[in-house]
Amino acid sequence: MTYVYDFDEQAEGGRELLGGKGVGLAEMTQLGVPVPAGFTITTEACRVYWTNGRRFPDGLEEEIADHLAELEQKTGKRFGDATDPLLVSVRSGAAVSMPGMMDTILNLGLNEVAAEGLARATGNGRFAYDSYRRLIQMYGEVVDGIDGYRFEQALTELKQKRGVKHDVDLDGDDLAELAQTFGGIYELETGERFPGDGREQLSRAVRAVFESWDTPRAQVYRGAHGIPDDLGTAVNVVQMVFGNRGDGSGTGVCFTRDPATGKPGLYGEFLANAQGEDVVAGIRTPEPIAAMKKKMPEAFDELIETIRSLEEHYRDMQDIEFTVEEGTLYLLQTRSAKRTAAAALKAAVDMVEEGLISREEAVARIDPGQLDQLLHPMLDPNAEYEVACKGLNASPGAASGEIVFDADTAAERGKAGEKVILVRWETTPDDIHGLIEAAGILTAHGGMTSHAAVVARGMGKPCVAGCEELTLDPQAKTATLGTHDVVEGDVITIDGGTGNVIIGAVDLVAPEINEDFGTVLEWADELRRLKVRANADTPGDAAKAREFGAQGIGLCRTEHMFMAEDRLPLVREMIMASDERSRREALDKLLPLQQSDFEGIFEAMAGLPVTIRLLDPPLHEFLPSLDETTDERMRKRIRALQESNPMLGTRGCRLGLMYPEIYEMQVRAIIRAALAVEKRTGEAPLTEIMHPLVGFSEELSRLRELTDEVAAEEGAGEYLCGTMIELPRACVRADEIAPHADFFSFGTNDLTQTALGFSRDDAEGKFLTFYLEDDILQRNPFETLDRDGAGELMRIAVERGRRVKEEIKLGICGEHGGDPDSIQFCHELGLDYVSCSPYRVPLARLAAAQAALKESGVEAVVVGG
Amino acid sequence: MTYVYDFDEQAEGGRELLGGKGVGLAEMTQLGVPVPAGFTITTEACRVYWTNGRRFPDGLEEEIADHLAELEQKTGKRFGDATDPLLVSVRSGAAVSMPGMMDTILNLGLNEVAAEGLARATGNGRFAYDSYRRLIQMYGEVVDGIDGYRFEQALTELKQKRGVKHDVDLDGDDLAELAQTFGGIYELETGERFPGDGREQLSRAVRAVFESWDTPRAQVYRGAHGIPDDLGTAVNVVQMVFGNRGDGSGTGVCFTRDPATGKPGLYGEFLANAQGEDVVAGIRTPEPIAAMKKKMPEAFDELIETIRSLEEHYRDMQDIEFTVEEGTLYLLQTRSAKRTAAAALKAAVDMVEEGLISREEAVARIDPGQLDQLLHPMLDPNAEYEVACKGLNASPGAASGEIVFDADTAAERGKAGEKVILVRWETTPDDIHGLIEAAGILTAHGGMTSHAAVVARGMGKPCVAGCEELTLDPQAKTATLGTHDVVEGDVITIDGGTGNVIIGAVDLVAPEINEDFGTVLEWADELRRLKVRANADTPGDAAKAREFGAQGIGLCRTEHMFMAEDRLPLVREMIMASDERSRREALDKLLPLQQSDFEGIFEAMAGLPVTIRLLDPPLHEFLPSLDETTDERMRKRIRALQESNPMLGTRGCRLGLMYPEIYEMQVRAIIRAALAVEKRTGEAPLTEIMHPLVGFSEELSRLRELTDEVAAEEGAGEYLCGTMIELPRACVRADEIAPHADFFSFGTNDLTQTALGFSRDDAEGKFLTFYLEDDILQRNPFETLDRDGAGELMRIAVERGRRVKEEIKLGICGEHGGDPDSIQFCHELGLDYVSCSPYRVPLARLAAAQAALKESGVEAVVVGG
Repeated sequence: MTYVYDFDEQAEGGRELLGGKGVGLAEMTQLGVPVPAGFTITTEACRVYWTNGRRFPDGLEEEIADHLAELEQKTGKRFGDATDPLLVSVRSGAAVSMPGMMDTILNLGLNEVAAEGLARATGNGRFAYDSYRRLIQMYGEVVDGIDGYRFEQALTELKQKRGVKHDVDLDGDDLAELAQTFGGIYELETGERFPGDGREQLSRAVRAVFESWDTPRAQVYRGAHGIPDDLGTAVNVVQMVFGNRGDGSGTGVCFTRDPATGKPGLYGEFLANAQGEDVVAGIRTPEPIAAMKKKMPEAFDELIETIRSLEEHYRDMQDIEFTVEEGTLYLLQTRSAKRTAAAALKAAVDMVEEGLISREEAVARIDPGQLDQLLHPMLDPNAEYEVACKGLNASPGAASGEIVFDADTAAERGKAGEKVILVRWETTPDDIHGLIEAAGILTAHGGMTSHAAVVARGMGKPCVAGCEELTLDPQAKTATLGTHDVVEGDVITIDGGTGNVIIGAVDLVAPEINEDFGTVLEWADELRRLKVRANADTPGDAAKAREFGAQGIGLCRTEHMFMAEDRLPLVREMIMASDERSRREALDKLLPLQQSDFEGIFEAMAGLPVTIRLLDPPLHEFLPSLDETTDERMRKRIRALQESNPMLGTRGCRLGLMYPEIYEMQVRAIIRAALAVEKRTGEAPLTEIMHPLVGFSEELSRLRELTDEVAAEEGAGEYLCGTMIELPRACVRADEIAPHADFFSFGTNDLTQTALGFSRDDAEGKFLTFYLEDDILQRNPFETLDRDGAGELMRIAVERGRRVKEEIKLGICGEHGGDPDSIQFCHELGLDYVSCSPYRVPLARLAAAQAALKESGVEAVVVGG
Repeated sequence: MTYVYDFDEQAEGGRELLGGKGVGLAEMTQLGVPVPAGFTITTEACRVYWTNGRRFPDGLEEEIADHLAELEQKTGKRFGDATDPLLVSVRSGAAVSMPGMMDTILNLGLNEVAAEGLARATGNGRFAYDSYRRLIQMYGEVVDGIDGYRFEQALTELKQKRGVKHDVDLDGDDLAELAQTFGGIYELETGERFPGDGREQLSRAVRAVFESWDTPRAQVYRGAHGIPDDLGTAVNVVQMVFGNRGDGSGTGVCFTRDPATGKPGLYGEFLANAQGEDVVAGIRTPEPIAAMKKKMPEAFDELIETIRSLEEHYRDMQDIEFTVEEGTLYLLQTRSAKRTAAAALKAAVDMVEEGLISREEAVARIDPGQLDQLLHPMLDPNAEYEVACKGLNASPGAASGEIVFDADTAAERGKAGEKVILVRWETTPDDIHGLIEAAGILTAHGGMTSHAAVVARGMGKPCVAGCEELTLDPQAKTATLGTHDVVEGDVITIDGGTGNVIIGAVDLVAPEINEDFGTVLEWADELRRLKVRANADTPGDAAKAREFGAQGIGLCRTEHMFMAEDRLPLVREMIMASDERSRREALDKLLPLQQSDFEGIFEAMAGLPVTIRLLDPPLHEFLPSLDETTDERMRKRIRALQESNPMLGTRGCRLGLMYPEIYEMQVRAIIRAALAVEKRTGEAPLTEIMHPLVGFSEELSRLRELTDEVAAEEGAGEYLCGTMIELPRACVRADEIAPHADFFSFGTNDLTQTALGFSRDDAEGKFLTFYLEDDILQRNPFETLDRDGAGELMRIAVERGRRVKEEIKLGICGEHGGDPDSIQFCHELGLDYVSCSPYRVPLARLAAAQAALKESGVEAVVVGG
């Protein structure tokens, strides 16, 4: 049995045997990339260690000794050498990454003699003794379990004695003294002298790494991540290299392409005669990578070549750490580079052009969530500002403007072309005219799916919600933001991408949909099976959605039209009507207004389907609040319409059945609008009429009859009639509902509320926040579809609906339609389309393509920015 | 092909060929029961009529003529006879009953000559001409489609002419004149004279019945009831008999046993020399049936004998209409008799003893819903009173008492032994102390499942809810009931069985659980598979439940204990606590109180399982309303806890996870109570701890850990730990939840709310009432389980739960656990038990037995009272 493999030796067993890190080092070594020399002790050795009563397997000591000898030969350096000693690190490396869970020891091989040798070789006594004292501390802690506090205390005392504040203010002599003190601590704690023999250090360090496999924290981590307890860890023994051995040495980090823009070419920093720690500690300032070319042209050329081979091998943009030791280049680490959305797109397009990756891979590489960055104005990355307070990043984008405290003022000033930020405790549908005209919205209450957040995202408008450090007095027109008092008219800036709120104006940069973005989306469009529609309530939204590539409207909410300033009085008249006749009179006045809304939307979406949902919210949402009116008749009606759980009350199709004249008016307005547009443009709109909140087939069958009757009266052409599926009952009875529906559109917001029994308004900031913080839930089910709950009901609905009507059109119009993971799920379910807010359409196109790719075996591998 | 069968002829084809009525008449005839003679024209004839272009099938006219000749021979009477003419009725009779949908014509065979003959034979000119004018009218309308208004107008004119108000004030001559007028109308409308030939009348009447199969109303009815359109109807031609042919004739109705008590022996009324119509019209008052024995002993003996054979044949108590024509007995109708619950029980037990039916049949005969009558005080059936207004019959039983308008007064005066009726707009958990002490509850708002209704049913206390004609002013202590103004202290009576509200006191009769009741329930217990438990929150309720045969407690709600007067201040202290420590301090004070509650319940239920549900409602339910307190700290907390949809908010196990100290206290109290009772009685209670509102397995796994830890700390013995299944997500993820649960208890109230998206508080009196009235729903899903929706989710949960844990105990504790149809469904699902309010336990025992019987092929055939 072989337990130890050199990095340049082929081993059967790969990652499972050598661990992730060991495989990576072997791969690079065998690829010809200059990495430090070393060897890997297999996971099998660790397993035997544990089954063998915590004893090294037979022969392991000898194998380690052989490979160490080989390492000494290869590097020309020796453990404990008085002139230029070999130093190694010992690092754990399991098959499945368990970051931070297990131990690492650096600088093994040092002792007093070798430390002096290292000082001599590097001409840097401070570095040598710092390395030595660190070895004693790390070794003491990891191998012998000494409390780290003992060492820290000695360091603090020495600094006090020297009258200095920072570690870096200690010189070589100080650190030599500290190393001696640490040696004393070691002896005091263990009763033994610190072992000077590098071989002994190594052997005990390997044992310590084996032991760290079974610490409680590692066990807990494995439990939480479902990693089997009997895998064991490999151990990597790696030559240490130093960039501080004179002018022929140095250290650097670099990207193979610009991580901000994606432009090809080396991009990074270099520092001659230095270790990486020097850069981190801020002792010296690094130069641009180009400086390396002059100082060590050969190593630079080798770096360029290495980088090229790494990109070719990994077929992705790399982020590299390297050291040059006396002219020899060593790569210490390479990994896929984090990048901005713009860089991700450019790099992907370039790599396709360079023949490095396929279009499919390019599409799979982009993080859909990141695209949001590109679709909203952002704070200038170079601007300096102070954050006054922070809320939830409820709707991306940034905006500066004067504070206003009520929707009327926001609407008035916004229409006048002024930039205002509407600041409220929370918003309600009554505020809609203000929301439309404000540049941004800031609320003290409400979560990611509060009214303000949902409406703002729908409009692609910045919103910071649930800002706990905001208090306000709308009457007095004053507010407090963190520690700042502000009044109406003061300028603030909100960043809906981060939740930051800033006093004063900050420069913004405009969103940019560049060519690369367009190219990647075109490739995505060729790959995806899911169609992407948008949720849009106005011709403006519809046009925006179309610009972003929407293939229709999946949800046009008619209630927002009811909220408009010129409609609301008519809507209230209708609600206050005491009988059907006076209700019809009010509705007759609304009809032409609704019709003109629909005409605008149909024209904007010519040639593409438009799904219009009939009135959904409970009527009391259109009335003022009790405090806002003294009209006794109105107050009485408000009280009569009050509900203890409005979410489960008189809304959706229940309204349409109780007051058929409302839906009749809406259907009539839709059909007349379609006919008018057809007459004007010669092209008939693709009209889809949608009934909300259906739970019983009888509801839909009656409403379909109403719809068909009104449509026939108006001489309608073709149209579809369907329903939202947003109640658990509708899901399990989809087979009974489907015969009456041309399409189902999953309303996953409400389905999540009813399936989970979570009121969106009451969950966020309350028990749901607690559940997420306490890890009872991994993800917010209102952001990412709860596949096992609401999703399982969808699965049942799809199966039962398609069983009786194979051709039924299936879509989703809840907010999940813009969430990549949820889109993936919709693809798996076999839906026909997703519908999301206009600003998320590009994201959805990409996510849909990735879902299709995944199905054909190409996993999305995305690296965030 | 034969199209016509005499009642005494055997025909292959049964109900499908002869229709329901035809089969019944043939069956009785062949049984030797004296029924009028006649024959049936088959449904096949009707089918051929329709497929044959609305023409009689070949030979049908001849067959009818033959059978008519036979009928004349058999009865010794002839069509159109001048001395004693034969009269027949023509009645439709399809295979599936379509009551009132098709046509009937009486008195066929009359003409002017025969009318005079009938007058002579009966000595009753009024009767003869009334029969004749009715024939013309009915025939005119049905056969020739004349507008009935024409005849009614003529009748009205004649009454005006004679200066009389009622039809009965017209004499024989008047009616002869009217018959002539009707004949004129007939001729005017049809252009033909009214046909004097009985054969022609008959032929055209049969055709009219065939035609009535396909009227729009019949088509709609068939559509609604799923009856195929091509069945066709049979037509029955039946000799008419008359009880008004002198002293040897008469008419009567009787029951084979007393329908009020079930005692054997003839029970009914008789009227000599009269037709049934005379009784209905109130012209003469009938005598007790015993009078018949004297007046016509032979007919009476024949009736007794006939009745015996009918009971033997139908094996059930019969309700019979008969006529004696000149000494000859004719049964006109027999059907299973409607009876009171007491009568149903007595008759069933007696019939088993008489060997008439089996125990299984006896059990299948009782309407479980009717048993409610026997378990509550009722208004004295002989009392006279006037109903002031009417509400919903929310909780059965009746009560008289003085009006009080607030819970405190109700509690105070109720405790002092006074009978009070608590009258409120609606009740809240804050009123619980008043509800406990009141004799009855009357509310203006709220439906069958409002707080008042649910609590009242749980306590077996009368409640009338949602009484729209009630308005009140609690400050002024006045109210209006319909048109009556009342003040505090006025006595009213409420009848929760009918919803009636009465001013003043009414005598009540006490409930009675007699021997028959006990006997039937014992038989039921032997037959049923489902166990029956009770929902009970107090030792008193538990004892009551046990008395009614409960086999344990399926739901003990701990929140009611929190509402008790001595607890509420502590509960509020706990809710107001600003940190965990002070919360724990308040909980420590609650612990011994909860423990003593549990001890009482465990003792009352010794040897039977007790399921205790940990705290479920949102905390704000325990705080006063905002208007009720001026304490700013309290008001702030109330506002912080307010929720827009409390049903879907921070409640159930979400509370237990956020404030584990609450559930810890409750588990500790349960375990300590169990140990104390075990020590005291030597018998360990069968403890089941239930966590509410679980939707995710992680919730239950954590709570089970908490439960087990606390139980271990207290040194608990055996206990079960399980969960309510009341969210759709829990249903579809039952396979993940089951491993952590020893039992599932379906909380179908909340499951109905979430599955259907129906807020119970908002649905009743609003859209749900509309849905029921408008036939969108057939049944209230909060009363009878919605099998296809909430029930389908239960089915999924049972299937998935049992798949991973076959032995898991399954029950239901929603209010549906006391509804017979829902119990049937629970049996079909294979649940282990149902749990309902104590007063519904007997009903549930019976319903469970009927479910088991149905499974083995014995359908419940119940006849209401």
